[in-house]
Amino acid sequence: MLPARVNMITLGVDDVAKSRAFYERLGFVASGFPSEEVTFFDMNGTILGLYGREPLAEDAGVGAAGDGFRAVSLAINLETKAAVDEALAFAESCGGRIIQPAREVFWGGYSGYFADPDGHLWEIAYNPITTLNENGGLTLPPPVGSS
Amino acid sequence: MLPARVNMITLGVDDVAKSRAFYERLGFVASGFPSEEVTFFDMNGTILGLYGREPLAEDAGVGAAGDGFRAVSLAINLETKAAVDEALAFAESCGGRIIQPAREVFWGGYSGYFADPDGHLWEIAYNPITTLNENGGLTLPPPVGSS
Repeated sequence: MLPARVNMITLGVDDVAKSRAFYERLGFVASGFPSEEVTFFDMNGTILGLYGREPLAEDAGVGAAGDGFRAVSLAINLETKAAVDEALAFAESCGGRIIQPAREVFWGGYSGYFADPDGHLWEIAYNPITTLNENGGLTLPPPVGSS
Repeated sequence: MLPARVNMITLGVDDVAKSRAFYERLGFVASGFPSEEVTFFDMNGTILGLYGREPLAEDAGVGAAGDGFRAVSLAINLETKAAVDEALAFAESCGGRIIQPAREVFWGGYSGYFADPDGHLWEIAYNPITTLNENGGLTLPPPVGSS
């Protein structure tokens, strides 16, 4: 079996320096790896990597062509609805594109989405069901049948 | 600024039950949220969510059409090259599609990729530069200029 963890999320981007600058404006602090081709941010345990779209495709052994919906989103959860509004406004001020303004959603939460310079989707969410724990993470209910 | 964390990674999939079964075969344990429309796995602090591709697009306010390279990969790092080989063979036995057999890579590591039932890319990697810490995470060098 595989260990249940995600060590790294790599986003393929057109211009690493441009994307790095965007994420730094959001407040993320890049690690000290000295490279113009790749950037890493420690996202509370999981690493966010920025890498060229073409070399990422090459690394995975697939073609780099593709467009439209990527069927992936990354979420940051916050403590309140007001924090969600503030975060989306801030992301927009940093150059993020608001693609879904925050609104009440059917599962009881409040969320909206922005896109990074390459269209990667970030959700900013308030979730009243699963609150944030002391590590800034979400605590899920235990598996069914577990003691 | 935004907190540097990823609370959730959501993968849009064609069939949540089918994808859930695949990830359960890999060894991930779904949380107790009782829903056929969505599944959550605790990936050592970050949640992996499986959700229908169409409702995920609708939630983000974008069209669901899209194909080709998604420019996103998720990585699990392991302790040795042999563990990478074993993990890829295991993922294949679970129904994963090997798209890049493990090989030595230019940055000094050893990695390969498999795709899940919807083509989402997972890298399995051994990284001799940044070893795994006691929490199963990667420790990055500190930011340039930090003390």
